[in-house]
Amino acid sequence: MDAAQQLIATAGPILGAKGVITEPAEIAPWLSDWRGRVHGASPAILAPASTDEVAAIVRLAAQHRVPLVPQGGNTGMAAGATPPPDGSAILLSLRRMHRIRSIDAAGRIAVAEAGVVLETLHHAANEIGMRFPLTLGARGSCTIGGLTSTNAGGTQVLKFGTMRALIAGVEAVLPDGSIHSGLSGLKKDNRGYSLDQLLIGAEGTLGVVTAVALRLVPAVASRAVAWTGVASPADALALLRFLEHRTTSVEGFELVPRDSLELVLRHIPGTRAPLDDAQPWHVLIEATTVDPAADIAAELQRCLADALGQKLIADAVIAANEAQAEAFWRIRDSISEAERVDGQTLAHDISVPVADMPRFMTEAAREVERAFPGVIASGFGHLGDGNIHFHVRAADHAAPDWYEREGAAITRMVDNLVTAAGGSISAEHGIGQLKREEFARLAPPGRIHALLAIKHALDPLGIMNPGKLVP
Amino acid sequence: MDAAQQLIATAGPILGAKGVITEPAEIAPWLSDWRGRVHGASPAILAPASTDEVAAIVRLAAQHRVPLVPQGGNTGMAAGATPPPDGSAILLSLRRMHRIRSIDAAGRIAVAEAGVVLETLHHAANEIGMRFPLTLGARGSCTIGGLTSTNAGGTQVLKFGTMRALIAGVEAVLPDGSIHSGLSGLKKDNRGYSLDQLLIGAEGTLGVVTAVALRLVPAVASRAVAWTGVASPADALALLRFLEHRTTSVEGFELVPRDSLELVLRHIPGTRAPLDDAQPWHVLIEATTVDPAADIAAELQRCLADALGQKLIADAVIAANEAQAEAFWRIRDSISEAERVDGQTLAHDISVPVADMPRFMTEAAREVERAFPGVIASGFGHLGDGNIHFHVRAADHAAPDWYEREGAAITRMVDNLVTAAGGSISAEHGIGQLKREEFARLAPPGRIHALLAIKHALDPLGIMNPGKLVP
Repeated sequence: MDAAQQLIATAGPILGAKGVITEPAEIAPWLSDWRGRVHGASPAILAPASTDEVAAIVRLAAQHRVPLVPQGGNTGMAAGATPPPDGSAILLSLRRMHRIRSIDAAGRIAVAEAGVVLETLHHAANEIGMRFPLTLGARGSCTIGGLTSTNAGGTQVLKFGTMRALIAGVEAVLPDGSIHSGLSGLKKDNRGYSLDQLLIGAEGTLGVVTAVALRLVPAVASRAVAWTGVASPADALALLRFLEHRTTSVEGFELVPRDSLELVLRHIPGTRAPLDDAQPWHVLIEATTVDPAADIAAELQRCLADALGQKLIADAVIAANEAQAEAFWRIRDSISEAERVDGQTLAHDISVPVADMPRFMTEAAREVERAFPGVIASGFGHLGDGNIHFHVRAADHAAPDWYEREGAAITRMVDNLVTAAGGSISAEHGIGQLKREEFARLAPPGRIHALLAIKHALDPLGIMNPGKLVP
Repeated sequence: MDAAQQLIATAGPILGAKGVITEPAEIAPWLSDWRGRVHGASPAILAPASTDEVAAIVRLAAQHRVPLVPQGGNTGMAAGATPPPDGSAILLSLRRMHRIRSIDAAGRIAVAEAGVVLETLHHAANEIGMRFPLTLGARGSCTIGGLTSTNAGGTQVLKFGTMRALIAGVEAVLPDGSIHSGLSGLKKDNRGYSLDQLLIGAEGTLGVVTAVALRLVPAVASRAVAWTGVASPADALALLRFLEHRTTSVEGFELVPRDSLELVLRHIPGTRAPLDDAQPWHVLIEATTVDPAADIAAELQRCLADALGQKLIADAVIAANEAQAEAFWRIRDSISEAERVDGQTLAHDISVPVADMPRFMTEAAREVERAFPGVIASGFGHLGDGNIHFHVRAADHAAPDWYEREGAAITRMVDNLVTAAGGSISAEHGIGQLKREEFARLAPPGRIHALLAIKHALDPLGIMNPGKLVP
């Protein structure tokens, strides 16, 4: 019996029948990443139901020297939860830890276990008149543990920040099996290095996040969603600054280029263009208020009328009702799907300083299109955060193996341009497996050295999510 | 020539005459902590003027195995910047690095070097219509580097958070002499473990913070300051919750017990009681607005009138002008000074979950007064953050060596009570030298183990601020 089998056998009595999955058909769906590009192998999924059970499994893993790959909803974009292909590691599913331990409107804190699905938390907060503001496309599947371990972003970062800004405390099992309890709910605590902050975004390589204390905000009373046409990314950013001087209500500000809109209209049934005339660029704007008496649509209307008067925008329409608001958002949320239907696409989740993004988008697209004739490069997404999903689509006549043949070279070029602009090759998706080589290639040696030192210090046996994040 | 002398000699050509101070009389003021209780020794102060110079000195320190003690304004409360008494370490003053490298109203970011004095940054922000909201009593001396390394708090945390929430990026020299550059101003960056977050609150034990990117907020248009009388800490907290449901303008909420007020009136010239009748407890409230058209005093007046109607408060007065507002704040800011004049005081900077603080304050004071007859225990300060300065004053007849004889036992009792309540023995002052033993005694072994592992991984030679924070 090899080490992994020994671990599985000893885990059985601790976890019970529900906690040990060895049936290959049940394991299979969890062995590939969300995009279906990276495939791993594992002899079992262990699924503890409590923090103590996680600790027991981590201690066994250390004893048997068997690596664990923590996994939540498996919706990550960097293959950070996919096990290595040699089957040497065991999947550690947190999905049975799906309890909201507490939720408190007065203290504005919810304590959710790692396996709680984001949408479940949204509903729970809503029921007490509160809101957990972070949201993203995978909200129906992604889990609090994964969101924490990847410091997830999404569409409301502009106002509320990433997970890091919304986390008040982390509970985790460290690689030595000890439990780090950061859930006390203290607003101020300066007892040495912040393990909470170190675990946020560590992609499960320094321990297993088991529960998180999350900040809540008052529920939205109403929202207004607008679709505007602008001449350029520079005008889009000028519009954002213009709005910021007039209102604190804007919480979503998503840039959509014309060709992305056209792809959606072509491939996603039931979609239609919000504006009559074709525009080179669009911005989807969401403004919200917590005040039931406020007329948020009128406020946004006034602001946009002023922007129109100053020729910052060419045209705008405010959704007349919730259905139309949802339709606007559906266009934005369907871009990746439309691209997938259309052909081969290389996605790059990048950031540069906000003020530099308009120029960067234009110049980087031009350079990539010149270096790889026939491809179409364009960016969409979170302009206000300096975070664009810079996608490069294959030419119409591209070979089926375009992605394999050209992908790495294009990505290297994009990453070089981003690095030269002082940006990040991973704005919100993390490093995982997919960006590990590029990260090692482009990060300063001192940074890589420090990260490796931390990794080896806290996980000397290398049992936590091997092959992810650090080189 | 010993190692320290060799380092000083080799540093000379790098730093120039201004950068090497060996005159004992010039060094002396920097060898004791702010409270004057801890005394160290050092053969020199090295004062680099740039990040590259800091890096050069750190590399020399590694080469010669001479520890460095980074120091800013030397206003810390835990002796974290005081060198060891054996003279084995060299003081590394950041005070010559006092440039504000950039300050940008549109991007709402200032990049300040470690030696910039907090008040200097306040003025610089104000000049462009912006504000850096963190403030505290030592603002005229404390520096950005020290504030970062101790994750400082202060009186406006309620609305704006501690330094951690206000820092957009950190530049630091790591113990291997490499420069960590986190000043790119990226809003989103998920490239592995956050060294920025690890350095915040690390008290100079993991590297030398050389510059920080700080978030700015719009300048205050006007403020209103009120002094209210309440029956108990529980009523004070209820008042805060009451106000939070009516306004987002409250940014200061400081609890002052009757005996603290009386001490101030007795010992600080020119102070007078804001209210006519004696009250058992008081709350100093500051509300601000960025809107020049808003009448913030009227808004606060309305809220307090409602609170009076609901008998949440016994009495209240709103400062009629800036001079009166300053007078109210002077009472709050003079409590420590009044205590010092009055006699011997043991200070404890502690936090518990906000909702538990009223009960904790009452019960802990009773228990301490029972266990140490004659002492007076009471708490004041940042109730809304769950952070109270819990001070224990000697009895009138106490011996001059009361602090030395009884101090440790009282502190152990307070720290035990705090720990039992799920709180922190250091809410905002850090661990430094003063709390190291208590931290080691009370922290979970897994936490101490993790902190030591990180310390040894990043500073294997032990040259960064020895004897601080980690046991």
